[in-house]
Amino acid sequence: MGPRHNIRLTLEYDGTRYHGWQRQKNALSIQEVIEQALARITGEAVRLIGSGRTDAGVHALGQVANFVTQSSVPLRAFLYGLNSLLPMDIAVLRAEEVPLNFHARYGALSKTYEYRILTRLVPSPLNRLHAWWISHTLDVAAMQQAAQFLPGEHDFLAFRAAGSRPGQAVRQVREAVWHCLPGDWLNFTITANGFLRGMVRSLVGTMVEIGKGKYPPDYLGEVLEQRDRRLAGPTAPPQGLFLVRVEYGA
Amino acid sequence: MGPRHNIRLTLEYDGTRYHGWQRQKNALSIQEVIEQALARITGEAVRLIGSGRTDAGVHALGQVANFVTQSSVPLRAFLYGLNSLLPMDIAVLRAEEVPLNFHARYGALSKTYEYRILTRLVPSPLNRLHAWWISHTLDVAAMQQAAQFLPGEHDFLAFRAAGSRPGQAVRQVREAVWHCLPGDWLNFTITANGFLRGMVRSLVGTMVEIGKGKYPPDYLGEVLEQRDRRLAGPTAPPQGLFLVRVEYGA
Repeated sequence: MGPRHNIRLTLEYDGTRYHGWQRQKNALSIQEVIEQALARITGEAVRLIGSGRTDAGVHALGQVANFVTQSSVPLRAFLYGLNSLLPMDIAVLRAEEVPLNFHARYGALSKTYEYRILTRLVPSPLNRLHAWWISHTLDVAAMQQAAQFLPGEHDFLAFRAAGSRPGQAVRQVREAVWHCLPGDWLNFTITANGFLRGMVRSLVGTMVEIGKGKYPPDYLGEVLEQRDRRLAGPTAPPQGLFLVRVEYGA
Repeated sequence: MGPRHNIRLTLEYDGTRYHGWQRQKNALSIQEVIEQALARITGEAVRLIGSGRTDAGVHALGQVANFVTQSSVPLRAFLYGLNSLLPMDIAVLRAEEVPLNFHARYGALSKTYEYRILTRLVPSPLNRLHAWWISHTLDVAAMQQAAQFLPGEHDFLAFRAAGSRPGQAVRQVREAVWHCLPGDWLNFTITANGFLRGMVRSLVGTMVEIGKGKYPPDYLGEVLEQRDRRLAGPTAPPQGLFLVRVEYGA
């Protein structure tokens, strides 16, 4: 057995086919598929630590994960070798050796998610797996006003998915903005020190209700304050959500 | 039987699952799927006329097709009704009634195709079905120089797919340009009065060889002049190609 190496992977994946990041019985997960490929390369039962789970159908442009190996396989095997073994909907963008104390989950300082909405009268076949199509016109100014309640420290209990494990729900949001992009795109970007399960999709679902005029922009502030899940809007569908990047200390 | 109506459809589709536009035995085509949906709406055996075929795996952002019906179904049924019957990878963007002499194929004055290339070291899961991934660095200036041989009237015999039906191969290209876009994208846009089968993919494949330094930019002009298929580069894969729009007279 050689010395231990801690390898950090940056990953892009299309979550369509998977039941989320996290390994589970009787359902295909991204973690499991990568662990199997790593086992083939290293000959070890590698345990991959992700920065956090992504739900079924959610995508990643920059998920981060790490694993410890005693194999003497060169670093480039974890980029080129892994990419040649992985299915086409998962890829390693970078593989780096990091100090042994690097931990993808505990070390994450913040994460950025993006949610993509396509607003037009008719559906878009080419974007059906990577966006939420909404045929209703949305009041983006009202949605942007609502998003201004998010930066800062809040208890996001009202925006946690039903059935989550209980626990502390206070999170610090650094930035939360809507951007209109050419071609009827409306993108929401949010950066926080952590996210509850279903939090981004629940926030987006509530802001879309505001954009439809069902509630005033202040409603988001009220729901935050009341901490009552029943007040939040419906959860936005998974295919519009992308984990964009995970930030770590220097 | 009511009076005859000529209906023009503008279509977006993801060609991944289909053996191209054109109806054929023993393989699923986009034309067939739309004709079946139209039959359900109109109760007639509708014959859909496309502006031209797209090959297996090729996509469309604005394919145009027309059909003649004697049903009294309102026009909106050919937008909303058809979209509710069609699979998620085919959609009607517009449905319009046009004069009876409109013919989607014979009336087409020009078509615009776009070919999307992603150049980076590692593959992109999120773009795997809608781009050609090339890990090699490409000399875009050389490719742009090569593209300058295309505008004007030429005999494109060298760029016709093997096994095509013989026929006249002179086409008039109005514009042919490469664009670099943020995020390692390299897009080729070409507008012409018509295209031979496989022509865009064969041109792109040849220009990529030039971009890799295998040939000088002038080589494209030579191949055009020689009219010899064996001189053209390998055909670019279908998933990077999009039929963007079809232009008709006023």
